[in-house]
Amino acid sequence: MAEPGAEPARGFTPDELAARTARAQALMTEAGIDILLLTTEPEFRYYSGFLTQFWQSPTRPWFLLVPAEGKPVAVVPSIGAECLARTWLDDVRSWPSPRPEDEGVTLLADAVLELAGPRARIGLPMGPETHLRMPLADHARLVAGLEDCAFVDAGAIVRELRMTKSPAEIGKIAHICALVSGVFEALPGFVSTGMSEAEIFRAFRIECLQRGADDVPYLVGGAAPGGIGDIISPPSERRTEPGDVLMLDTGATFDGYYCDFDRNYAFERADDDARRAYATVRAAVDAGFEAARPGVTCAELFRAMQAVLERGGALGNDVGRLGHGLGMQLTEWPSHRPGDETVIRPGMVLTLEPGMTFRPGRVMVLEENIVIGEDGPAWLTRPAPTELPVIGEGG
Amino acid sequence: MAEPGAEPARGFTPDELAARTARAQALMTEAGIDILLLTTEPEFRYYSGFLTQFWQSPTRPWFLLVPAEGKPVAVVPSIGAECLARTWLDDVRSWPSPRPEDEGVTLLADAVLELAGPRARIGLPMGPETHLRMPLADHARLVAGLEDCAFVDAGAIVRELRMTKSPAEIGKIAHICALVSGVFEALPGFVSTGMSEAEIFRAFRIECLQRGADDVPYLVGGAAPGGIGDIISPPSERRTEPGDVLMLDTGATFDGYYCDFDRNYAFERADDDARRAYATVRAAVDAGFEAARPGVTCAELFRAMQAVLERGGALGNDVGRLGHGLGMQLTEWPSHRPGDETVIRPGMVLTLEPGMTFRPGRVMVLEENIVIGEDGPAWLTRPAPTELPVIGEGG
Repeated sequence: MAEPGAEPARGFTPDELAARTARAQALMTEAGIDILLLTTEPEFRYYSGFLTQFWQSPTRPWFLLVPAEGKPVAVVPSIGAECLARTWLDDVRSWPSPRPEDEGVTLLADAVLELAGPRARIGLPMGPETHLRMPLADHARLVAGLEDCAFVDAGAIVRELRMTKSPAEIGKIAHICALVSGVFEALPGFVSTGMSEAEIFRAFRIECLQRGADDVPYLVGGAAPGGIGDIISPPSERRTEPGDVLMLDTGATFDGYYCDFDRNYAFERADDDARRAYATVRAAVDAGFEAARPGVTCAELFRAMQAVLERGGALGNDVGRLGHGLGMQLTEWPSHRPGDETVIRPGMVLTLEPGMTFRPGRVMVLEENIVIGEDGPAWLTRPAPTELPVIGEGG
Repeated sequence: MAEPGAEPARGFTPDELAARTARAQALMTEAGIDILLLTTEPEFRYYSGFLTQFWQSPTRPWFLLVPAEGKPVAVVPSIGAECLARTWLDDVRSWPSPRPEDEGVTLLADAVLELAGPRARIGLPMGPETHLRMPLADHARLVAGLEDCAFVDAGAIVRELRMTKSPAEIGKIAHICALVSGVFEALPGFVSTGMSEAEIFRAFRIECLQRGADDVPYLVGGAAPGGIGDIISPPSERRTEPGDVLMLDTGATFDGYYCDFDRNYAFERADDDARRAYATVRAAVDAGFEAARPGVTCAELFRAMQAVLERGGALGNDVGRLGHGLGMQLTEWPSHRPGDETVIRPGMVLTLEPGMTFRPGRVMVLEENIVIGEDGPAWLTRPAPTELPVIGEGG
């Protein structure tokens, strides 16, 4: 699975989109929800199959309604109507947008009433890792306009469906993971001591694109003597020097699906404590992989990795977890942390991301991506070397 | 201004960040708002100066409070505390995140009470083109926990500040506009008939990065015989053919600031009606440029361009406007449309984006970026050729 192969087919079959909808509808029935109202890009795409970068523009809201039965109904700005008409959806309604005085609110309210009646229980994702992508004032207008309806939290339904990936989804993630694994393996050939962080980031992005990634929406990290200080910084113009440790953490995409993993490299030479810290996080990844079997909880997975970090002298970790779900977003539920009792099950795509402060102000993080099968996990990334790789050693 | 030059300095001076804060505080006083609560990336960055791609991860909310006086206060996940401590901010509070049972809500409520008192009027952006980036259920908890406070719409304050750009902001936008103008001018050298849309998109992204763009978060368009059908599609694997018209519309970034413009090309030959449509949108851009003087409204700017499109035989336009603001986001307020009475003033960065359906199912759009000065507009992009460029003509 971790070898790069032919590019998977783009998009999803209408059958898959229909199956997702039917699953959501079954959960809606259980929860007494008459209609789902979805406003964010991943949810809109999950049920409509429609991928566009147009969500980069915050001007116009897009809405998808999942009624109790039948296909979802799109309520979208006029600019999206033609594209939506080419999806598996039959019912696409649009308003001339932008029109801030009524940015789709009346059309949306009418659609809800038509599809679910005047006393509908409307499910809206309200819980962890969700947000509402429409102006708060428009939300208030919608609630007022649907005065006999109830708005209830549908976060659990959204989460339940998206946490387990289909074979087609896994294929897309596997493809981008394998592709970027190749980029990291080739990195010592296109990065050398003396390049600035900014130059390294640029070269990395270009290599990902040249090998077939659609985009590299997420790239953070940096290089610093003996190890980096934080893991979410943008690149600086500082030139790398012998003894620096470079970390790059990337979310590249194929057909709207992410990988999310990192690699570490030393320039010319590595301090002993950086090597030890690397060996520790590398061993913690293996411990996480061993533990990641169906039936285990995320909290247990956390503890399996955390035990290795503690034995390795970890001084703490301000990331708050040791990995998470992955798919249409860079990070998704669940989280490998003490309080997350989510049970791991086949079809989940997860990161293993043990990290630790190994000296004050110096952190080491290693991240891999896996998929859970019936009998246990499989790598989606090609695992990192067992020892901290050194660029230009002896050079 | 439209010639590519040395890379502008990254980030902003503490003086500029302090001036933005003071301006917001003056408007807050006028509006009777005691404290601003900001949750989205551009607003957080505007006052903190902190740029990170970490917002790609939807797991953790980030909050910035702008009190009635003094510096903003950051309330952020622990993973961001160290980075924030390096900004101009003095007061950075953090909680161990992810912690869905209390994802910063208590810490945030306590900070509001401390900074603005138990009966604070809390300003939250609620109006057009805004959203709340925190779970709705957490918002409800926050409102309940601040029961004697009032939440009021601060969208007008946010909008008022961000619509007028500082010289440093304009410098960053000018840089990316000039850089991408060069990419478009060079395009006939790296794109040829027979390449697929996907290959063209890839080559375009790589060229932008090689010339110094930080990222290309937005790239849409396509190629089709005689003209494209919509302007927001992702690329297909279809191979371009003689007679196709290619449109690429991109938002590339430098230091967190966007350009947003497009270019059109025909392969080998262009139909007469595509040439005429191009000449029409090109003339409409010029009419928009002439009209874009301080004191004019966006509605007037719209009409200046729309008159040219109608004379050119436009069959309509489902974009809903003929341009918009631009800056930290691909699209910002205002909109050039009939109902937008925003008065154009110096410091505004705007797109001019006349587009029209020139045959059923065939659209032509041209977009340029300008900045408004005291005496009138200046180009940020190097304006497109006056005639539809043809790739491989006679080849």
